[in-house]
Amino acid sequence: MAREGRRPRRDRAATGLAQPAFARLRNPFAPFEIVSADQIEAIHAASLRVLAEIGMNFLLPEARAILAAAGAEVEPGGPRVRFDPAFVEERIRTAPSVFTMHARNPERDVRIGEDWISFAVVASAPNVSDLDGGRRIGNFADYCNLIRLGQCLNIAHLIGGYPVEPVDLPPATRHLDALAAMATLADKNLYGYALGAVRMRDAIEIARIARGISAAQLLREPSLFTVVNSNSPLQYDGPMLEGVIEMARHNQPIVITPFTLAGAMAPITVAGALVQQNAEALAGIAFAQCVNPGCPVVYGGFTSNVDMRTGAPAFGTPEYAKATLVGGQLARRYRLPYRASNVTASNAPDAQAAYETEMSIWPCVLAQCNLVKHGLGWLEGGLCASYEKLILDAEMLQMMAAFLEPLETDGDALAIEAIREVGPGSHFFQASHTLARYERAFYAPLLSDWRNFETWSENGALDATQRANRIWKALLAEYQQPAMDPAVAEELDAFVARRKEEGGAPG
Amino acid sequence: MAREGRRPRRDRAATGLAQPAFARLRNPFAPFEIVSADQIEAIHAASLRVLAEIGMNFLLPEARAILAAAGAEVEPGGPRVRFDPAFVEERIRTAPSVFTMHARNPERDVRIGEDWISFAVVASAPNVSDLDGGRRIGNFADYCNLIRLGQCLNIAHLIGGYPVEPVDLPPATRHLDALAAMATLADKNLYGYALGAVRMRDAIEIARIARGISAAQLLREPSLFTVVNSNSPLQYDGPMLEGVIEMARHNQPIVITPFTLAGAMAPITVAGALVQQNAEALAGIAFAQCVNPGCPVVYGGFTSNVDMRTGAPAFGTPEYAKATLVGGQLARRYRLPYRASNVTASNAPDAQAAYETEMSIWPCVLAQCNLVKHGLGWLEGGLCASYEKLILDAEMLQMMAAFLEPLETDGDALAIEAIREVGPGSHFFQASHTLARYERAFYAPLLSDWRNFETWSENGALDATQRANRIWKALLAEYQQPAMDPAVAEELDAFVARRKEEGGAPG
Repeated sequence: MAREGRRPRRDRAATGLAQPAFARLRNPFAPFEIVSADQIEAIHAASLRVLAEIGMNFLLPEARAILAAAGAEVEPGGPRVRFDPAFVEERIRTAPSVFTMHARNPERDVRIGEDWISFAVVASAPNVSDLDGGRRIGNFADYCNLIRLGQCLNIAHLIGGYPVEPVDLPPATRHLDALAAMATLADKNLYGYALGAVRMRDAIEIARIARGISAAQLLREPSLFTVVNSNSPLQYDGPMLEGVIEMARHNQPIVITPFTLAGAMAPITVAGALVQQNAEALAGIAFAQCVNPGCPVVYGGFTSNVDMRTGAPAFGTPEYAKATLVGGQLARRYRLPYRASNVTASNAPDAQAAYETEMSIWPCVLAQCNLVKHGLGWLEGGLCASYEKLILDAEMLQMMAAFLEPLETDGDALAIEAIREVGPGSHFFQASHTLARYERAFYAPLLSDWRNFETWSENGALDATQRANRIWKALLAEYQQPAMDPAVAEELDAFVARRKEEGGAPG
Repeated sequence: MAREGRRPRRDRAATGLAQPAFARLRNPFAPFEIVSADQIEAIHAASLRVLAEIGMNFLLPEARAILAAAGAEVEPGGPRVRFDPAFVEERIRTAPSVFTMHARNPERDVRIGEDWISFAVVASAPNVSDLDGGRRIGNFADYCNLIRLGQCLNIAHLIGGYPVEPVDLPPATRHLDALAAMATLADKNLYGYALGAVRMRDAIEIARIARGISAAQLLREPSLFTVVNSNSPLQYDGPMLEGVIEMARHNQPIVITPFTLAGAMAPITVAGALVQQNAEALAGIAFAQCVNPGCPVVYGGFTSNVDMRTGAPAFGTPEYAKATLVGGQLARRYRLPYRASNVTASNAPDAQAAYETEMSIWPCVLAQCNLVKHGLGWLEGGLCASYEKLILDAEMLQMMAAFLEPLETDGDALAIEAIREVGPGSHFFQASHTLARYERAFYAPLLSDWRNFETWSENGALDATQRANRIWKALLAEYQQPAMDPAVAEELDAFVARRKEEGGAPG
């Protein structure tokens, strides 16, 4: 079953917008593999050679001390760490292959790993845009609206970070307001940034408070996730490593994602970029397991390519599709959950944005990706969060979710008696087999317009992007803040106030 | 290898538009199967029961006589024909699993079957549109321009029919002018319509003349193809059956394609619609093999669904994706070449058109489809051919072709020495490994704009549809009619003139 239960009920809000109910999705199909097992072994072996012979820079002394104590080869006085292949293989083995992410609303819990697939809202864009207001620098008002939309859209399983950077909030306390808003305006899974130990601990504490649980329960239950990007090639910086240490010690999930742009920060061949991705990911995962064996981690793949004429990064390319599929094969080899992304380089929420997104999400699904980051709203290679793109993506992901419902061939699904009843040259509109099923037989779109040209023209001839503009406004208009226990809200407010008084995370 | 040879050279025309050279494409990946072998057997068995117990109407007496002589059970005095399962299985077995389609330019020949995949231009739209001229009834001027664009775009392997119906040409002689223009303005594979024996024979003769071959050579070499749609449910009409008879007798390829819209002309369940599709396809293929055992046929799948609120057909839906994949599994079971389509219900060449197209072409590729009809330019569920959609599709199909190039992991593709040379914290722009490869490392787009927001804005902030508008104009401006032997051109003119004098195909 792709979902728990049969085709889920639809939520139809006051606006008349229909969307399938929130549901944990499973991928019922066998993974699609584009390279052979031998090729996977070649990439694996090459990445272990890179870690053994070249190694990686770990810029945080505390991290090097942890690695040295665990048996890795730390260069005296320098940042370089080299890893014996057996050390890597042994360390990554302690990571779980599946875990539950707990939201403050247990109905929003998701499973990460195995055949589960979840979609997260766009994260970390410096700019934001919509058709009416154009493009502008990230700010807290848009931040909150995008969180609200992430809450409204049932296909968004998790909030994936700050949908847009709220640069109008002071840097030292920004994470406090941003996390508190994320925890209050939505009841879905939370995300904190690995920007040093202080911010990471604050985020973990906000997740604990929002769920109303004890520190001991938090240790058992992943409640906040983060992404750690290596500084490709072959380097982890101090603030990120502090984040890994805090998250691992609190048993919270870390998505280790090298950002390996072939031709720029990684070799120009896709296979070479994957070797580097794999080396960096395995080193990061091994490090997290050294900090706390058994802590939840996710193998992140983010290999794309640049336009070699301009150096501009490209996304949703054929090379990205292949790298995403091979990333899934690698993650399965290590029995680790797999993260990939929904990406596009388009500057507008247009046809290019749509086809580059499809060139991302088809490989994500085919690769048995468990966590699709930037699932809704990413534009401009991540430099902009788009309101209209959020709606375009919701439609595309809803269609994928419907695609993942297995094809039924049992009972009268094969319809021989219906075909007999109707016979040659007639139609099925009135057949009893049709009438028993017509209300829930097919996927019902959020955005797609299937009316004929004449009706569509009479209704303004709006293209998909213009309709998306109307839909996000309708969703925002009907948004209702999810209820929160007043005691929890009070504790959250008090924590944020106290930490602000203390100065937040200066520097 | 996805292509013959390595990454093909690019054609760079005067406009600066780059596109990969014309290439026969192979699909190197294993087919993606979404139902089990048992489910395929259940669909197969159900469709054979439909043919045995219910049967199909064959509205042409000559066709019934052929079937009766071959051993099918023809109802006395009526149109109904029933088929014993063993009869069907035995008859379809004589069809070839792969054949070559010959164009008048041998460089444009394509293989249909096995792991080959070819894309055809949009066909049979009653309307045509572009951003400047809007939507208008099909006409010969647009017909010719769309053929010219089909010739310009290397990713278009075949002309798939009349891109738009030239309704300004008189019905009785329209096929003569349309076929002559198709054969003259392009040098790619030709298509004729199965609208009665006379038109079919004229089309075959034009294909023979255009290739400059004898009738005997034509009998050995498929040079024209046609699609035969059943009148679902369970009926073949007279003109179509006459077309099958003519094509089969001339050994020319027939693509048998039931158009089974679940909930309208087929059962509302996708599995039921597939049972009907399979029954109708097998009956048509068996009939063609009765006419001429061994003649080339293609198993066509075209199962989509309707919007049950309005009855409007929907395309590029999750149901379409699943039906396309299962269609591939069925065709492989019979070792027959497989045809599916690139479809959308969108009224504009917009984001919806792009994502519905991707929801079609990913399943086509994953299903090991051999012939993708309506590959370039289809809009409005086939009611309109769009100039801008043609360019959008060219980009999406070019990306798919690049995706089909296998990932290389041999030699220094794994790039260990490049990673060593660059080391941690640097970049690969100047690495020798990069410099040796940068010109042909990645897919170069026709339409996608990867420039940053500022540069894109300064250049007019054109969205993908607006850029597509500029591209088709540039392609048309640089179009050059492919050379034709003057003797062939003369014979073609003389044939058309003579057939017009005779009145064409009246009635």
